[in-house]
Amino acid sequence: MKQPEEKYMQRAIELARQSVEKGGGPFGAVIVKNGEIIAEDSNSVTLDNDPTAHAEVNAIRKACKSLGTFDLSGCEIYSSCEPCPMCLSALYWAHIDRLYYGCDKQDAKNIGFDDSFIYEQIELKPRFRSLISKQFMQNEAISAFEMWEQKEDKTEY
Amino acid sequence: MKQPEEKYMQRAIELARQSVEKGGGPFGAVIVKNGEIIAEDSNSVTLDNDPTAHAEVNAIRKACKSLGTFDLSGCEIYSSCEPCPMCLSALYWAHIDRLYYGCDKQDAKNIGFDDSFIYEQIELKPRFRSLISKQFMQNEAISAFEMWEQKEDKTEY
Repeated sequence: MKQPEEKYMQRAIELARQSVEKGGGPFGAVIVKNGEIIAEDSNSVTLDNDPTAHAEVNAIRKACKSLGTFDLSGCEIYSSCEPCPMCLSALYWAHIDRLYYGCDKQDAKNIGFDDSFIYEQIELKPRFRSLISKQFMQNEAISAFEMWEQKEDKTEY
Repeated sequence: MKQPEEKYMQRAIELARQSVEKGGGPFGAVIVKNGEIIAEDSNSVTLDNDPTAHAEVNAIRKACKSLGTFDLSGCEIYSSCEPCPMCLSALYWAHIDRLYYGCDKQDAKNIGFDDSFIYEQIELKPRFRSLISKQFMQNEAISAFEMWEQKEDKTEY
């Protein structure tokens, strides 16, 4: 008999394969809480015209909607591929407990996806990145942070 | 007279301040193409129960919807704060040309946001990260990538 972990990963892989069939990217993800799948989705970047619509991000958004929270503590995610830095960061912001993945970023690179390149870029200081960037008006921008600090009824996350 | 860059950043800061007033996070972002604002938004993580709803991600989603594409080449983004790794990666995936930002990740850390921590985590090998992760079933998972490679009418990005 299969372990539950295998069953969830099998489902993530099935979602990735179905996604290819329907014209999406070859990635699927499943979010599990207390032994139950609470959300699952696949990559819909090209189908939805949304470059942020990776399988993990889509699944996180669904799980949060379903549970009515922005905090997925107590949840695990099964992803058919190692998350890109966007999705990995999203897992941190969502406070997901545990990550299981099938393929890795080298496999993704081999079929033409930029995951590895973006991992390399993030580690660089802004001035060395291929994305040209410039910081300015810091003194003016900090005013929003001061408002935040002074607000007494704020919802922190 | 103000430079256009200042005007767009001023707008991003204004969105961040308005967001604090309405109960969102203290971050705003504006996307500009050919000298025109095509999308703008603020952080709505707590308002929308969506941990991925940072200002930059929200603005990217809106810009893509507005232009009917997943590729924002030719666009610039003005963010009231240095993007977190999720948003920085999203800028790469969206192929945004240029980034301007006001506050930086240290400023964000000072008011309690995890941006710096997540930057540190991403640079670590998976086994050293605080997020527990495990790779398995790679051989099964690769089947979705093989389907992708063999598909002739796929939309790459």
